[in-house]
Parts: sequence; structure tokens; C-alpha cells
Amino acid sequence: MLIVGERLNTSRAAVNEAVERRDTGFVAREARAQVEAGAGLVEVNAGSRRDSEAEDLSWLMRTVQQAVPGVRLCLDSPRPQTLLAVLGLAEKPPLLNSITAESARFQAMAPLLGQRECDVVALAADERGIPKSTPQTLEIARRLVGELEALGVKRERIYVDPVIRAASAEQDAAVTALQSIGRIRQELPGVHVICGLSNISYGLPWRQLVNRTFLALAVQAGLEAAILDPLDAGLAGTLLAAELLLGRDPWCQAYTRAFRGGRLGR
Amino acid sequence: MLIVGERLNTSRAAVNEAVERRDTGFVAREARAQVEAGAGLVEVNAGSRRDSEAEDLSWLMRTVQQAVPGVRLCLDSPRPQTLLAVLGLAEKPPLLNSITAESARFQAMAPLLGQRECDVVALAADERGIPKSTPQTLEIARRLVGELEALGVKRERIYVDPVIRAASAEQDAAVTALQSIGRIRQELPGVHVICGLSNISYGLPWRQLVNRTFLALAVQAGLEAAILDPLDAGLAGTLLAAELLLGRDPWCQAYTRAFRGGRLGR
Repeated sequence: MLIVGERLNTSRAAVNEAVERRDTGFVAREARAQVEAGAGLVEVNAGSRRDSEAEDLSWLMRTVQQAVPGVRLCLDSPRPQTLLAVLGLAEKPPLLNSITAESARFQAMAPLLGQRECDVVALAADERGIPKSTPQTLEIARRLVGELEALGVKRERIYVDPVIRAASAEQDAAVTALQSIGRIRQELPGVHVICGLSNISYGLPWRQLVNRTFLALAVQAGLEAAILDPLDAGLAGTLLAAELLLGRDPWCQAYTRAFRGGRLGR
Repeated sequence: MLIVGERLNTSRAAVNEAVERRDTGFVAREARAQVEAGAGLVEVNAGSRRDSEAEDLSWLMRTVQQAVPGVRLCLDSPRPQTLLAVLGLAEKPPLLNSITAESARFQAMAPLLGQRECDVVALAADERGIPKSTPQTLEIARRLVGELEALGVKRERIYVDPVIRAASAEQDAAVTALQSIGRIRQELPGVHVICGLSNISYGLPWRQLVNRTFLALAVQAGLEAAILDPLDAGLAGTLLAAELLLGRDPWCQAYTRAFRGGRLGR
């Protein structure tokens, strides 16, 4: 499972303040802690700081790359022009979060994919918004993958995100998401499936319990990558237990090592 | 999900002592707590007390039935003759745990099923022991269900248990179990699927984490009943979250009620 550490987002007050004060120590600690907890990529997002986004994002990128050399970045912004402005700073081809099937967003993101061999999160959403059924999700995903391939993006660089909805608002949100994960794997072989977890628990009490239970089900359904908080020990523990149970942890080594290191959570 | 509360087993030291001292209060509290936490049946097991098993089991049955009137019992014993001796004391037809395809065990258990309209746990095991593959599990389950039907036991009274093995000893134990659960549901329509959870985590540290993660996966695979400790709040919380996510908790009522009642665990 590829983990994208989501903590360095200025929508979190502490991160916003650290960016404001150019607090290198804070950002470096957050980056290192996420990588030590298993993040394969570190996401940076300064989208909430509209007036200084590109400058702030550049600083975040440089700071993270210095703290965890060699670790790839995931760049997230609502504004494609920001991503275009900072792309050159990434030492390794980053994961871009995200492109959609909305034509304005697609057109604005397309130049970035020509510029470097980036990976890209392809959100299954279009002008009509977020799809409510698996067939609709697949239709958008198929179209998006086709259009990306037409741009020369190879399937293994595409991470389709079926866009999780809130289980509190729609009773079938999780079942639909799990089906979509399985069907994307089946019907678009070669692409990866990623998702952000936390939407699923929106509006519910004790969201972490719902998030981690959904993560176990999603791993079983075929999820390969997740954007999440790797320092949520309950989530990390559930992921390790799920991988053990699904036969992906030979001799239970990763699980027992995490237990000894106190990283399973309680 | 039907929960069979497993706590009243004399293999637990506290229960053994309570049975020894005929401590009605202790047993009544354990029974009530399990039912309040969601157990639909209360299991009683005095199998470790070989010399006085029938007498002890009778006392347990009477005590539990007095504490939680109307709640059905699950009777567990390695010795069919004990079950035969106490069966008449059950106020409602109990769930018998268990029959297997081993011919001696099957022959000894058969008379009980003729005597009352009991439900029965049918363990997928035979003379060769516990099967190691899904096809083998299915073959035994099919044979056992056929033989039970020949005795006049209706399918809805049969709870097939695919017999979970330890994930620490066999890397594919959980995957095989999950496949078996799904296949039994598919290929033996009408029978129920039950399992005891705790074998899965045998030999691993922090077994509760593995148990509850497996429970979520098993519910998704089609598990309908489980023999477990309903007072393990982590397990209960995961079960509620899984049922919510699988669309079985309209308006998230059971989940939010359990949260408010402090029953989700942490």
C-alpha cells in the first residue's frame, strides 16, 4: 500500500501558522514523522493561502525535500497555474493531485503532464459533479484514462480516485466506493486506485473508527494507495493488520516490527 | 449480525471460580452485560470441568436463564453425552456447538438434533482434521449439510463454521477463511455462516487488533454470526462501523446510539 502523507496542508491551523512564520523545524519534523510512519510520498498543499500560494508551496517543497531527501512529493492545489509555477522545484517527478474530467480543469492540467513525467491523481468527477453510482464512476474513469493516454500519459502513472462520499449522507456511499475500487482494478488494468479516506466519515462521531474500518474494507477491495494521516496510529495499525490478513506480510514481520516499535496504536 | 457471547466458559479462570463457588451474581452480571452489549445468544461452556461438567453446565444454564429471561443459549461441550443430559433444561431451543463430519462426533450428536428443534454449529472438519483450502472446506460443509438434512434438520437451523486457522502459522489463513465464507453463502443457500474469531490472531501480539480487522473483512465477505466477546469494545465498535459502511445501519442510528452510550470503545 502506497501511503501519501496528508498532514502538510495549510487548511490545518498549525501548518498554516508554520508556513506563515517560515518555521522550517515544524515542517521538517512533520515530513520526517510521516515518512518514518510509512508515508511513501509527502503531500504539500497551500491552497488555503490564495494570495501567496505559489510562494508558500515553493517554500514547503524546498523544506520537505531538505528534510526527507529522495522522498517524492504529492502536489495539491485547486489552481493548476500554481502547480505549473512550482513544478520545476520538485527534485523527482511528483504526484499531481489532481486532474478531473471537467474540461476546464483538464485543459489547465494537461500542460503539466507534458512537461514532466509526473504521476497524476485522476478524480472521477466531471461537469455533473461527483458520480453517485459505480457505473457512472467507471464511465468517467474510462473517459479520463482515455484522454490521459491520448496525451501520452502511461497507465502506470495514473491513480484513479473514485471520490468517496459521506456514509452519513448516503447509505450506500461505502458499498458504492468499494465496488468502484474493484471494478476500476478489473476494467482498467494497469491504472492504480487511490483514495482520500476521510470523506467517508464526514458528519459522524469518532471519525477515526469509521476511517480505519473503511480502510480495511478498501484494501480488501483492491485499493493500492491512500491519502491519509500516517500518524493516526489506529489507522496505521488497522492497515498493517489488514495487510497481514490479506497475506501480504510474510511471517507477519511488518506487523510485529510495528508492534515492537509502538506504532500499532491502541 | 448475530453475536454469540463467549465469555461464560470455564476455561476462563474467573468463570471457573464462579462456577466452583456457585456465584450466581457473577454469572448473572456476565450474562446481562453481554446481552446489553448486543449478544443475541449467550454461550455456556463447562468443558474444562470434566468431573462435574453436566452438573456445572446445568447450574450455568439455570443461572443465565434467570438473569436474562427469553435469551437463547448456545451450549458448548466436547462431550455430546453432556449436551444430551442438559438439553431438556434449555427454555428455548438452543444453538448446539458443535457437530462435525467426524463420524463418531456426528453419530453422538445426531440424537440431540432429533430431540429438539435446536440450531446447530456445523464445523467444517472431519477425520482428516481442519481443512486447509476453500474447496476442501466446501466439500466437508456440503457433506455435513447433506447429512444434517437427511436427519431432518432444516438449512436455516444450520450454522456452518469454516474453522479459522492462525494467520501467524499460515499466511493464507484469513484469505482462505474469507473465501470460504463467501463460497458457503453462495453454494449452500439457506445455511448460515458463523465463526469463532480468536483463532485468527493466535500467536500474534495485540490480538484484539487482528481480531477486529478480521471481523470487518469477514462481515464484508458474508459472515452472519460470530462467537466473540461482546465486551471487547474495540470489536463491538468495528462491527458497528462495518455494518454502517456496508449499508446496514439506516441513518447511522445504531452507530451513533452506541457512541452516545460509550459503547464504541477507543
